[in-house]
Amino acid sequence: MLLIGERINGMFKNVREAVANRDKEIIKELARRQMAAGSDFLDVNVGPSAPDPVSAMEWLVETIQEEASFPLSLDSPKPEVLEAGLKLCRGQALINSTTAEAARLETLLPLAKKYRAKIIGLTMNEKGIPGEVAGRVELALQILASAMEHELPLEDVYLDPLILPAGVAQDTAPKVLEAIGEIRRLADPAPHVILGLSNVSQRCQNRDLINRTYLTMAMALGLDAAILDVLDERLMESVSTARMLLNRDIYCDSFLEAFRSRKVRVY
Amino acid sequence: MLLIGERINGMFKNVREAVANRDKEIIKELARRQMAAGSDFLDVNVGPSAPDPVSAMEWLVETIQEEASFPLSLDSPKPEVLEAGLKLCRGQALINSTTAEAARLETLLPLAKKYRAKIIGLTMNEKGIPGEVAGRVELALQILASAMEHELPLEDVYLDPLILPAGVAQDTAPKVLEAIGEIRRLADPAPHVILGLSNVSQRCQNRDLINRTYLTMAMALGLDAAILDVLDERLMESVSTARMLLNRDIYCDSFLEAFRSRKVRVY
Repeated sequence: MLLIGERINGMFKNVREAVANRDKEIIKELARRQMAAGSDFLDVNVGPSAPDPVSAMEWLVETIQEEASFPLSLDSPKPEVLEAGLKLCRGQALINSTTAEAARLETLLPLAKKYRAKIIGLTMNEKGIPGEVAGRVELALQILASAMEHELPLEDVYLDPLILPAGVAQDTAPKVLEAIGEIRRLADPAPHVILGLSNVSQRCQNRDLINRTYLTMAMALGLDAAILDVLDERLMESVSTARMLLNRDIYCDSFLEAFRSRKVRVY
Repeated sequence: MLLIGERINGMFKNVREAVANRDKEIIKELARRQMAAGSDFLDVNVGPSAPDPVSAMEWLVETIQEEASFPLSLDSPKPEVLEAGLKLCRGQALINSTTAEAARLETLLPLAKKYRAKIIGLTMNEKGIPGEVAGRVELALQILASAMEHELPLEDVYLDPLILPAGVAQDTAPKVLEAIGEIRRLADPAPHVILGLSNVSQRCQNRDLINRTYLTMAMALGLDAAILDVLDERLMESVSTARMLLNRDIYCDSFLEAFRSRKVRVY
């Protein structure tokens, strides 16, 4: 299970202010805490309102790497912002994200190849997000085919069938579960599937309960990666319990502590 | 989601003693509390050590029905105990359970037909529980075929692919998830699938967490019935959240309270 900590994102006020004021300690602390809580990668997003997103991304990557060589997920709709971050990353980065639009694939897949990065592919195109399962699966297949043409290793591609808030698009939640199962059956070994988990509970009450319930349901269908709040302890307990129940981690009485304390993560 | 409250069972000390002493109030209170907590049926099991299980079952059924005409799941390996209870049940009862053994099917399916009862079919036979998914699915199909021969409505048949404790048979947990998905695809409309949920966490630490995590994972694969501890509030919150995320109950901000308070249960 690839876990990507979501907290270094300009959508959060403290991060937005830290970026504006170039306040390193807030960012470093978020990096440390999220890695200690079990992140495999740290998402890095300057937010939509940063006046100079390229230099903001450079500053964020450099600041985090002053702390340690944590693996980074560079999160931006702008290729130039992504590349500015990729240039600075030590170790393998993750590009978050491309869509299935031809123009974006032709820009972002070469970038992934150039920097040997992992990449997230969103199952949407210029027409938007397909309403039905088959449409999402078709776009996932297009992204995989395009990645093969660009000679990317498929184990570096993470397909995101795009969950929407249950409060406004409730019928999407079961459709995305179905799409996860179908995408996993597209190839052998199964393609990676990822979700931006917190979207499912946007503007809902009982957000944490919705997040952890949906995550374990999605894991039952084969989800093997997520961008999520790793600082939510009960969410992480659900992840480790689901992993044990999927027979991915060996059962022991203290399986929660074993998961929490391990240094080498088993994807 | 058909929810069967598990607490009136001679495996629990207070029930065993209440049966031995013919103490009605303990039983009635367990019946009331479990129905108030959201049970659709109450499981009734005299336990393995009752000296006269037929009269114990008769007493339990009569005692509960003095309180109200609650739907009852009669739980015994002995056909004569089941029939003693069935004779007394007002409304539709549930027989818990038959196996896929020919002799048991030939005894218990006619009993279900005679009393117009629902029935649980366990995917095991004289050889035991199949170790692999395909074996469980094959026995489920045998039970369904046998139920059709006996002219039972298939909507009254609940197939149980038999979860085992994760601490001693960890590889069973993902196999049972897979079996649930396959059994649901055996017919259209999909056959009902049920689990005796608490088995998954027998002798494990963090039992409640394991139970609610596994239940929502199984619901994601199509599980639509469970014998469980309805008095576990967090388990019931997980059920209602999973139902909302499967688009079975309409989203509202107070979806937890709506589920808790509703009088008419939607299976």
